[in-house]
Amino acid sequence: MRPGPKEQKPATAAAPPGAAQAAPEAMGIERLRERVDRIDRRLVALLAQRRRVVERIVRVKEELDLPTFHPAREENLISARRAQAVEAGLDPDYIEELFRAVLRHSRVGQLKTLGRRAALPGARVLLVGGRGSMGRFLGAWFTQSDYEVRVLDRDDWPRVGSLSAGLDLCLLAVPIDVTVSVAHQIAPHLPPDCILADITSLKREPLKAMLEGHRGPVVGLHPLFGPATTTMDKQIVAVTPGRRRADCQWLLGQLATWGNVLVETSPEEHDAIMGIVQALRHFATFAFGHFLSSRRIPILRTLELSSPIYRLEFAMVGRLFAQDPSLYAEIVFATPERLALLKDYVQSLQQHLGLVERGDKAEFVARFRRVAEWFGPFSEQALRESTFLIEKLVHRF
Amino acid sequence: MRPGPKEQKPATAAAPPGAAQAAPEAMGIERLRERVDRIDRRLVALLAQRRRVVERIVRVKEELDLPTFHPAREENLISARRAQAVEAGLDPDYIEELFRAVLRHSRVGQLKTLGRRAALPGARVLLVGGRGSMGRFLGAWFTQSDYEVRVLDRDDWPRVGSLSAGLDLCLLAVPIDVTVSVAHQIAPHLPPDCILADITSLKREPLKAMLEGHRGPVVGLHPLFGPATTTMDKQIVAVTPGRRRADCQWLLGQLATWGNVLVETSPEEHDAIMGIVQALRHFATFAFGHFLSSRRIPILRTLELSSPIYRLEFAMVGRLFAQDPSLYAEIVFATPERLALLKDYVQSLQQHLGLVERGDKAEFVARFRRVAEWFGPFSEQALRESTFLIEKLVHRF
Repeated sequence: MRPGPKEQKPATAAAPPGAAQAAPEAMGIERLRERVDRIDRRLVALLAQRRRVVERIVRVKEELDLPTFHPAREENLISARRAQAVEAGLDPDYIEELFRAVLRHSRVGQLKTLGRRAALPGARVLLVGGRGSMGRFLGAWFTQSDYEVRVLDRDDWPRVGSLSAGLDLCLLAVPIDVTVSVAHQIAPHLPPDCILADITSLKREPLKAMLEGHRGPVVGLHPLFGPATTTMDKQIVAVTPGRRRADCQWLLGQLATWGNVLVETSPEEHDAIMGIVQALRHFATFAFGHFLSSRRIPILRTLELSSPIYRLEFAMVGRLFAQDPSLYAEIVFATPERLALLKDYVQSLQQHLGLVERGDKAEFVARFRRVAEWFGPFSEQALRESTFLIEKLVHRF
Repeated sequence: MRPGPKEQKPATAAAPPGAAQAAPEAMGIERLRERVDRIDRRLVALLAQRRRVVERIVRVKEELDLPTFHPAREENLISARRAQAVEAGLDPDYIEELFRAVLRHSRVGQLKTLGRRAALPGARVLLVGGRGSMGRFLGAWFTQSDYEVRVLDRDDWPRVGSLSAGLDLCLLAVPIDVTVSVAHQIAPHLPPDCILADITSLKREPLKAMLEGHRGPVVGLHPLFGPATTTMDKQIVAVTPGRRRADCQWLLGQLATWGNVLVETSPEEHDAIMGIVQALRHFATFAFGHFLSSRRIPILRTLELSSPIYRLEFAMVGRLFAQDPSLYAEIVFATPERLALLKDYVQSLQQHLGLVERGDKAEFVARFRRVAEWFGPFSEQALRESTFLIEKLVHRF
């Protein structure tokens, strides 16, 4: 349906056979395309050369024990290339986009080498629940940084004594609903200076249990990413300090070396925010996906007829269902506070539905305006950021 | 909170002053960085050179009236560069990402020139509702392609006779709730061969009204993008043919020349899908945003403590509230079918809430699995696509 009167021309070759003036011009296009290809080959060759120089820089950094990131240098580099772009008549945003991709790639490559450095080389780490997906994931990171990694899973309790001997860190990577009991169970076996930490997505009860059970250093962690993550570069970990903070510092330093961004919070603040960010959001997404399936919506046709923003929203519903249902059940069913939150939410939907039933557009618009006011400058920012992403989506697929 | 014992080193300069072996190595780093800078300067110079060659290709295409896109050439180019990347020891996905950005930029640049070509040069276009935001947006596109653009807004009805004289296209860009009456009002004034078209986000009633009122060519359009869009490159327009399709072809061809992707559908299919894609989704997003504001959630702190996927979801809620509330009210309140859909949706949420109240995790997991099965391979694809976007988000901000 695409071609109009002027678009009927074939898109495969240059010009229709027999066209009087067309042939030499078409030749011209072919020659120009060859020049583009030569330039592109040269671009790739230069990128390969750049990579080799960066690898030498990484080796020097490793010898001198220098950090991977050098934010000021990155910004200077971008500014210089933007200035050059303007002089050369190129769009500076375009050049920045390309160089951000080059720098990101370079940084991830450097992290592969430099990110392995151990903050406390050879320290003994026990992963409780180490055969679960997050346990295995973290185990691989500790192992590649030359820690001595031990695993205690469900069937290993008879060996808890030998597994706990001389430990520097005991990390709980077990489901939410057993974290508290496992904390109480393992604590008596730990050496007094061993760090006890967990990675549960709730923090109040687990931290309390760890502090009660263990007299040594304690810290609560919540990595805001899953085991499918390939790089820790810029991934967020929420940190709720428990006791003897200085003695926990090497562990936090190790996470930072791996590339994580650490955000400190209190267990109360953490759990309140996660009620919204995880429980409510997952519940709403689950319900939306369930509704689509109960209506037997024709997915592919719907996507063909959708704006990029909806394709993106739809992808974000779909992705939930590629993941582990019990993890989500645990998050949604975790606490009575979460149930109360979900109740309030469903009740508010019922209220808005009332507006639609009464045909009260004016009140809908008034409520909309009040929310917009509350969001303030955030909604404009959100529009900009999501538009940027939509561009990416449109042009990739 | 970031630095651990080994990260305390300053990130600003190379090595601490006075370090025995460091100075010469640091010099080494400086020299290597200068080499990187030289390579980067060369990269930008090559991109500028590429741009000049592409501009010459555009001029040839313009002379020969060839299409902007050449998908097969783009894919060959990507394949060749991927192969070269593998040989040079680079990650081919990385090189593909860079060249996709280069090609996109090149395509958008070409569209600026080639996309202006008129399918029916000098044709007379009347935009009804032409002073609204979409009306002004489309007016600018028609004008830059050398059409004669006229505008009929609320106060212009006394001049409807002269505005309609000799028209080739009458395009309705008025709010949903008046499209039907405006179609009946304008139709008697149109020349018999004039196309009557609309851009309403509903299609059944508007198309019916246009066919009843006008005996000439009729087509329903629904552009799935808003007036804030800067390029039409790959933006979707739903098309519901009405009457004398061949006579509407120049209009569809013009949209394709501007870069739009046209998707043909029936009014019934269109309206059913838009009930989900627009009415239900906007209602759910409105309700979620309203709930966040009613709870006075600390937005910025919540974002600091959020995984990228949640920041993205949050941005997609926020963006709604940067837009025109009456447009959304119209979409949500449009038809009785939409009210019924929203009722079913809220009822299904109530049911799922019952599960959480009873603590029935097993049934939650069972429902989750059934939805996952229904989504089929889509959920894996959604996970991949959204992960790609999350990477973009993480590394941009």
